[in-house]
Amino acid sequence: MYTLYYSPGTASMVMHMALIESGAPFELKLVDIERGAQRDPAYLALNPRGVVPTLVIDGQPRHESAALLMMLADRHPEAGLAPAPGTAAHDAFEQWLVYLSNTLMSTFRFWFYPPELGSAEHPPQVRAALAAKIEGVWDYLDRALAAQGPYLLGDIFSAADLLLAMLMRWSRNMPRPASQWPALARLADLIRARPSWQQVYAVEGLSGW
Amino acid sequence: MYTLYYSPGTASMVMHMALIESGAPFELKLVDIERGAQRDPAYLALNPRGVVPTLVIDGQPRHESAALLMMLADRHPEAGLAPAPGTAAHDAFEQWLVYLSNTLMSTFRFWFYPPELGSAEHPPQVRAALAAKIEGVWDYLDRALAAQGPYLLGDIFSAADLLLAMLMRWSRNMPRPASQWPALARLADLIRARPSWQQVYAVEGLSGW
Ligand SMILES: N[C@@H](CCC(=O)N[C@@H](CS)C(=O)NCC(=O)O)C(=O)O
Ligand SMILES: N[C@@H](CCC(=O)N[C@@H](CS)C(=O)NCC(=O)O)C(=O)O
Repeated sequence: MYTLYYSPGTASMVMHMALIESGAPFELKLVDIERGAQRDPAYLALNPRGVVPTLVIDGQPRHESAALLMMLADRHPEAGLAPAPGTAAHDAFEQWLVYLSNTLMSTFRFWFYPPELGSAEHPPQVRAALAAKIEGVWDYLDRALAAQGPYLLGDIFSAADLLLAMLMRWSRNMPRPASQWPALARLADLIRARPSWQQVYAVEGLSGW
Repeated sequence: MYTLYYSPGTASMVMHMALIESGAPFELKLVDIERGAQRDPAYLALNPRGVVPTLVIDGQPRHESAALLMMLADRHPEAGLAPAPGTAAHDAFEQWLVYLSNTLMSTFRFWFYPPELGSAEHPPQVRAALAAKIEGVWDYLDRALAAQGPYLLGDIFSAADLLLAMLMRWSRNMPRPASQWPALARLADLIRARPSWQQVYAVEGLSGW
């Protein structure tokens, strides 16, 4: 039994999908970040940085979506969230998760939280530079997927694709949303066709894409 | 046999240490980033983003130091780079690696590469905000280590400590270097006392700390 602390449409979304895909029983607890509930003392005891997601695994609160996906994939080998440990494809799985977290997710964090760069709103040149960095990632990923897709691991679906689709969704109101890149758009279509994506939309009350 | 593409004192340093600790044979290839060798076509074929490190594992070029540490730890269980798979401590190991990569390493990237935020030099408020974000990480890590150190996994050394010590070193010329935090300073002393750290200093020609 897992417990996921989540907020609709945020970084917890990929864990919600992955839990559904795992087939394991889980419980959802809403953290209302609009009203600042991520800074309630009870939540800070689980997640001292005051962010979502937190996933409670065997009674231990764990953080960082890319790491949580690895933990979940390991525990449910039959769910096909990752290739088998010890294979070259498993190395690629870990590499993509860390890359997406290190480069894309961290840049989105600055994109969505201008105060972390010292302003209430980004000055135009900062905004343009962050957008360019994110677009550079789409270029790189689109080339990789066009050469050896449709998934990040070629023919094999993995939880890394769930993370990528979620991050693509975060770009939907940017000047150039990720879905303008054809191989990325194809990947997003594949992920949006999965029951887990549709169930998360229904439960979290999401719309748009 | 591994091949590590490295540049002295950069993100490849942690892989150099981890390879020494693994006891496995490896070969070093210098990528001279001062002269832009990371953008040579031969290197871009191994690492399309033009960054170090690249670690060639079983003939496959792999990237992202936090992921590379996981791959190496898995292949050399006897080296004690990580707790055994399937344990709670292994979950914590993955969480720390991803956290350090997602939050700290990515912010250092912006700190050291102002053009990625649109300026030749950071404006003062951006510089202050990046320093504050990095210092917030030191606060958080110092509290965690004071409560349950001396290592990130408590009594157990792991490759996550190597990554942290390397990142602490990167702060040495900042207004408040990480070594000003006592529990972090203790961790750095433990890592600097390891033969792998000393060997990397000698081979890469590093000085200062
Ligand atoms: N790197 C973290 C991201 C955590 C994060 O930044 N979460 C955001 C939502 S997407 C959050 O909780 N924001 C609320 C806040 O910072 O106050 C992960 O992958 O789990
Ligand atoms: N997230 C990457 C970091 C890669 C990175 O940014 N490396 C820097 C050196 S610390 C680099 O190669 N810089 C040269 C350049 O970007 O041109 C990792 O952990 O491996």
